[in-house]
This record gives sequence, structure tokens and C-alpha cells, in this order.
Amino acid sequence: MTKVDATEVLLFDVFGTVVDWRTSLQRWFHRFGKEHHLEADWIGLVDDWRAAYEPSMARVRQGERPYVTLDMLHRESLDALLPRYGLGSVPDGDRREMVRAWRRLDPWPDTLAGLARLKRKYVIGTLSNGGLGLLVDMAKFAELPWDAVLSADLFQRYKPDPTVYLGAAELLARPTSVLMLVAAHNYDLAAARSHGYRTAFVARPTEYGPRQKKDFGPEDAWDYATTSLEELAQKLGA
Amino acid sequence: MTKVDATEVLLFDVFGTVVDWRTSLQRWFHRFGKEHHLEADWIGLVDDWRAAYEPSMARVRQGERPYVTLDMLHRESLDALLPRYGLGSVPDGDRREMVRAWRRLDPWPDTLAGLARLKRKYVIGTLSNGGLGLLVDMAKFAELPWDAVLSADLFQRYKPDPTVYLGAAELLARPTSVLMLVAAHNYDLAAARSHGYRTAFVARPTEYGPRQKKDFGPEDAWDYATTSLEELAQKLGA
Repeated sequence: MTKVDATEVLLFDVFGTVVDWRTSLQRWFHRFGKEHHLEADWIGLVDDWRAAYEPSMARVRQGERPYVTLDMLHRESLDALLPRYGLGSVPDGDRREMVRAWRRLDPWPDTLAGLARLKRKYVIGTLSNGGLGLLVDMAKFAELPWDAVLSADLFQRYKPDPTVYLGAAELLARPTSVLMLVAAHNYDLAAARSHGYRTAFVARPTEYGPRQKKDFGPEDAWDYATTSLEELAQKLGA
Repeated sequence: MTKVDATEVLLFDVFGTVVDWRTSLQRWFHRFGKEHHLEADWIGLVDDWRAAYEPSMARVRQGERPYVTLDMLHRESLDALLPRYGLGSVPDGDRREMVRAWRRLDPWPDTLAGLARLKRKYVIGTLSNGGLGLLVDMAKFAELPWDAVLSADLFQRYKPDPTVYLGAAELLARPTSVLMLVAAHNYDLAAARSHGYRTAFVARPTEYGPRQKKDFGPEDAWDYATTSLEELAQKLGA
């Protein structure tokens, strides 16, 4: 129990852990298609767009290019994808709106109730590869009640770069031992734990739809393994 | 009216503008004195401590020393002051608590109601020389409902360094023209405006108690001049 009591701050991965980007973007693109009288394989587009995320960040992580925000990476991968979906003539203004759709993602059904409970007992914040502007706008849209918004662009590095985990602790003026990362991705928890964080896994087995190949469950002995933020609140006595 | 409508984010100076540091710290020290059976001129100590703030930051601003957080500056100036108040034997643990008292400041009477109204219409955030950890802890204590906490230590610079105002806009992924600084200090508004921010003055004529010598009113044609955050909300139609 002393372990639990000592935790002061819960930091959350956001895409997939807190918000359901896939269903939200699918809905957004279907609406966009109707409004613009366009037909396309929106589901394929969304899945391919997300699939470009890891390799686009990897180039930054490996030092092949300087840091750019996730908004910029999203725009570049979108520009590369649209022609393959017969959408090469979509104008710049609409492409900007598509990139901004990543700010309008819906929370998972358990998210708001879980965060409300956890916020009563802990400082709750983000630790996401999204940019601060993106995360703040998303929080406003989805009513995510963060106490602190911490993001990759504060450090000009992407997770799992150590700077992100250690920099967050420094900004919060706390040792990593009182921080807990909450994430649906085992790699993120492994990195956080290697820097002294406590860890909570939240299973999001439908995050990637039929393409999901991993993260169906905890792959290591994380401090907590749950299937929702409400369950996590219950386990933490919040 | 178009001017008002285009504003998306209100960024607030915190010490003096949002919270009443002087009365809060006086109360904190009186309580501390009672609990520790110590008597001292707590009012003088608080006023002298705050008076050390500007010169201590100036040394960082002028490059005489590398950036350190406000917590560190507070500790250094406290250590210098305590002996002058007959408190040289106060141990390290109590000094840490004194520094942490800057996280437990009460809002002005109009703050919470004003912020609640403004938050419905705008993204609201801090733009303070306090560190992020200090500001997050203060928000938790005082229930300040920030959407974003932006602080000097994100930029390793103190206001009015241009990096702070320009860096905040970059992190928020917006031009400065859609940002408004809300502050009780004319110098802060002047710096913000020089970088394209809109400006709102809030008069806090008792911030420094009898020592107050300036900032009794607006010293320039700011976009708004008010005497409370509720009045600001009303003027902005929030």
C-alpha cells in the first residue's frame, strides 16, 4: 500500500489510451466525404495514415531529420497517402482540416468517468507524442480535465526517448518514483519503468481494429493491469 | 467585435493577477509561527522575500547566471533573509516548506468565478515566471481550471524575455494575434503587445500592500482595462 500512496502524478499516453482515434477519424472522414460528395476507402485511409506514424517518428528519433511536431508529420504522411486513395486533388484547406481532425477525437467510453475519479486523488496529465497545441485543443474538445499537459514538443524528442520521461519529472519538480505512466502500449511502459516510473497498463484491444497485432494484454509485470480507466481508479482507491 | 471574436486563448500572469500571494503567505507564516512557537515580523519577511524576486530574476535575465527555477531563486533569497529576521536556525525541512508555501496561494475573490466563465469561451492558461511544477501544484490547491500550464521553465527564460511570449504561441500552434495576455502588471502587457498579443489589464491595487508603488491602473491603452476577472468575462461576453 505504501507504493500506491506515494504516487502523486498519473501521466497518460493519449492516442489509443485515452481517446479512440480510429473510430473518431473514421466518423470524421465519412462526414467529410458526405459534405464534399467524395467517396473513398476512408477506413483504409485512416488505418494507413496511423500506420505512417511510427516510421515518420522513427526518422526523427534516429536523427535522420530535426524534430518537427506531430502535426507536421501528419501532414506529410497525409500528402503522401491521398493520391493513393484517389484524393490527390483535395485542396490545402481541406488537408489542414484533416490534420486538425486529430484534435477532435472522442474519449473511450470509460475515459471521462475514470479521469474524474483519478483527478480527485492525483495530479493527472498527458505524456504524449502529440504537440502541446494539439493536446490542449483535444482536451477542450473532449473535455479531458488535465491538470498538466506535457508533450513531446516540450523536449523536441519523441517517446520512448529518455528525455521525455526524465524531462517530465524535472518540469513537475518531482522524482520519477512518484510518477506513474498509464498507457495501452507495452513499449511505452517499459521505457517509463526503466526511468523509475510506476506503470499501469490499460488494454485497448480494438485500438487498431482488425489490424491490431499487439498490446492485447500486459506483456510484463506492470504495477497495474486493467481494461479501463474506471477499473484503474478502483484499483488505486480513487 | 471581430477583434474580440478572433481571440482564442487567454494567457494569465499568475502571482498578483490570479492569486493573492501577499495575504496568503502572511497567513501561512502566522500559522507556521504558532505551530513552531516562533515570533517574528512575518509581514516584513513576506514583503522582503517578494522584493527579492525581481533582482534575483534579473541576474538570470542579464545572463549573469544560468537559468534556475523560481523555486531555487525563492530558496536562495529565503536563506539570505531568515537570519535578518532572527530565524537563522530554521532547519532545512522547514525552509523547504516555506518555499512550497508559494504553491498554496489563495485566488483573489473574483478569480474562480471569472475563470469559470472565461473557460467556457476561451482556452485559458498560465504564462508565469513560476515553474511548471509550482503552477500545477498551485492549480490543484486553489482549483484553478487551466486548460494549459505554460511557464518560464519551458523556455529557460523569464518574462519579459521575448522567448516566453513567442514560445508560448509556438507551443499552442497559433499566431500571437489570437492570444491575449491578462496581467496586473503594465510591463508584462507591454512586452506581450510588442509581440502581437492582445492585452487585458486587471487592477490589483493591494497586491503589494502598503509597499505598492505602481500598477494601480492601466498605464497604456490596453485592449481591456478591468478591476476583476469577472469584469473581464463580462466585457468579453463570456
